[in-house]
Amino acid sequence: MENNCIYCSKDKNLEKLMIEICTLEYSTLYLFKDQKHLGRCVLAYKYHATELFEIPYDNYQLYMKELRFVANKLKELFNCDKINYAIYGDLVNHVHFHIVPKYRDDIQWGEPFSDKINPIFLENDNFKEIKNLILKKITT
Amino acid sequence: MENNCIYCSKDKNLEKLMIEICTLEYSTLYLFKDQKHLGRCVLAYKYHATELFEIPYDNYQLYMKELRFVANKLKELFNCDKINYAIYGDLVNHVHFHIVPKYRDDIQWGEPFSDKINPIFLENDNFKEIKNLILKKITT
Repeated sequence: MENNCIYCSKDKNLEKLMIEICTLEYSTLYLFKDQKHLGRCVLAYKYHATELFEIPYDNYQLYMKELRFVANKLKELFNCDKINYAIYGDLVNHVHFHIVPKYRDDIQWGEPFSDKINPIFLENDNFKEIKNLILKKITT
Repeated sequence: MENNCIYCSKDKNLEKLMIEICTLEYSTLYLFKDQKHLGRCVLAYKYHATELFEIPYDNYQLYMKELRFVANKLKELFNCDKINYAIYGDLVNHVHFHIVPKYRDDIQWGEPFSDKINPIFLENDNFKEIKNLILKKITT
């Protein structure tokens, strides 16, 4: 637990960016509010660590197992053409993977997903529907 | 082995982008020619797969172990402030991680690394020196 870490405190600064879908054994899965890539999620490691190699090895293996599990579920649910996976975290340094479905005929295909173009925020009902679809897919 | 995959064929199109540093058990480590982030590497999975969840589970865990091992070595060698890790691969879909050292007082700190700004290609001797430093670090 790190002071001033939005993933440790799960505070309002985190809620501005994403909402929690569910917790897994070694991670928490969030739905990213900017849904310009439909199904974009964040999978944050359960405890505070800034680099993958700082995570105790047994936990690391299980977190990586959850990464692959979630990515597979998103691929099945959204029928996307590719999943992008990224950890940046220069400033928000708690280990978290962006898991970003990409679509061949949609924006930023063939280039890294980026927040430099305008975000797309869905109507509340649509956003909740996506959250619930993912939750159902993950838990069944 | 996939036809027309630059990571499977290790052909000249790959050599334009990166040079091989060494092979590990489940991956090949490359030094990226654009060194605007000093120490930027690519760690390609040994066999052709397009998504992390398509890799057989045992191999996946060992590839992930190598990812963490390499990232740790790069952090120690270059004393960078953060490592960024990313798989995109919409077009070059063979699983490969970009492992990108980031530096607090340098370009693109606090934002995703990007190829949209001008590349920095080093003199041949400097490039080889970096390659050899990484090789030595990895193998000792």
